[in-house]
Amino acid sequence: MKVNIRNIRKQDSDELIRLITELAEFEKLKPPSKQAQKRLLDAVFSRKFGIKVLVAENDRKLIGYAFYFFTFSTFLAKPTLYLEDIYISEKYRRSGTGKKMFRELIKIANNNKCGRLELMVLDWNVNALRFYEKFGAKNLYNWKFYRISF
Amino acid sequence: MKVNIRNIRKQDSDELIRLITELAEFEKLKPPSKQAQKRLLDAVFSRKFGIKVLVAENDRKLIGYAFYFFTFSTFLAKPTLYLEDIYISEKYRRSGTGKKMFRELIKIANNNKCGRLELMVLDWNVNALRFYEKFGAKNLYNWKFYRISF
Repeated sequence: MKVNIRNIRKQDSDELIRLITELAEFEKLKPPSKQAQKRLLDAVFSRKFGIKVLVAENDRKLIGYAFYFFTFSTFLAKPTLYLEDIYISEKYRRSGTGKKMFRELIKIANNNKCGRLELMVLDWNVNALRFYEKFGAKNLYNWKFYRISF
Repeated sequence: MKVNIRNIRKQDSDELIRLITELAEFEKLKPPSKQAQKRLLDAVFSRKFGIKVLVAENDRKLIGYAFYFFTFSTFLAKPTLYLEDIYISEKYRRSGTGKKMFRELIKIANNNKCGRLELMVLDWNVNALRFYEKFGAKNLYNWKFYRISF
């Protein structure tokens, strides 16, 4: 199976929304509303928020994506690559596509002189935890994650 | 005590480094090297990484700072204000300066149509946990925080 990892293009919009909806269904979450879809695509293509999207393509079809952006560690005084989302369509799992995508993210982090790559995982997602651990990711269990929702 | 919360200016550089060094000593961490200080100030004033800094000023002296930047929630399709660091110099604690700073951050989040304000806290920092909880922050204990260090 030939998989190409590349930056998103505007003409991928419908395919991206299809995959995002697929992920929402898989996670039994409400898929994004039309308004949220529009806000998300605007945010990606306006480059206003620094969001970057990699896509995995097979046979001209999108089979996965990763949303990431750069944050900054004041402690290291270096940028961090923050991986917001990574998703591979279910029937393309175990094909090496996730690994290929993740290796590309590590390359991007290194090219941008990042000191770290960070992400959050839901505690029940054991397959994901194992996947990240294979790449050397460590769980920083002494940090608590806090959120105010408006 | 009159405290003014405002954006950082280039002429605050020395004062900011003084406070950062003070925090490192307080936390028994190594203070930033000359190189890291330079990288940090470059990052703040070049605006390359989207880092923003609020400072608290009393009697022309800096007594606190907050580093923040905007990330993005693909789930909400809205920006998030991420608070990287907030520090009030020890002898100015319990003066209301932290609250004033935090209220300003909430205002900034709202002005930027953020869906969330997020931060990480070390689990032993009980005073900090209580402080954030008073503002309605919730601990998302089912998310695990992972990091790859390069």
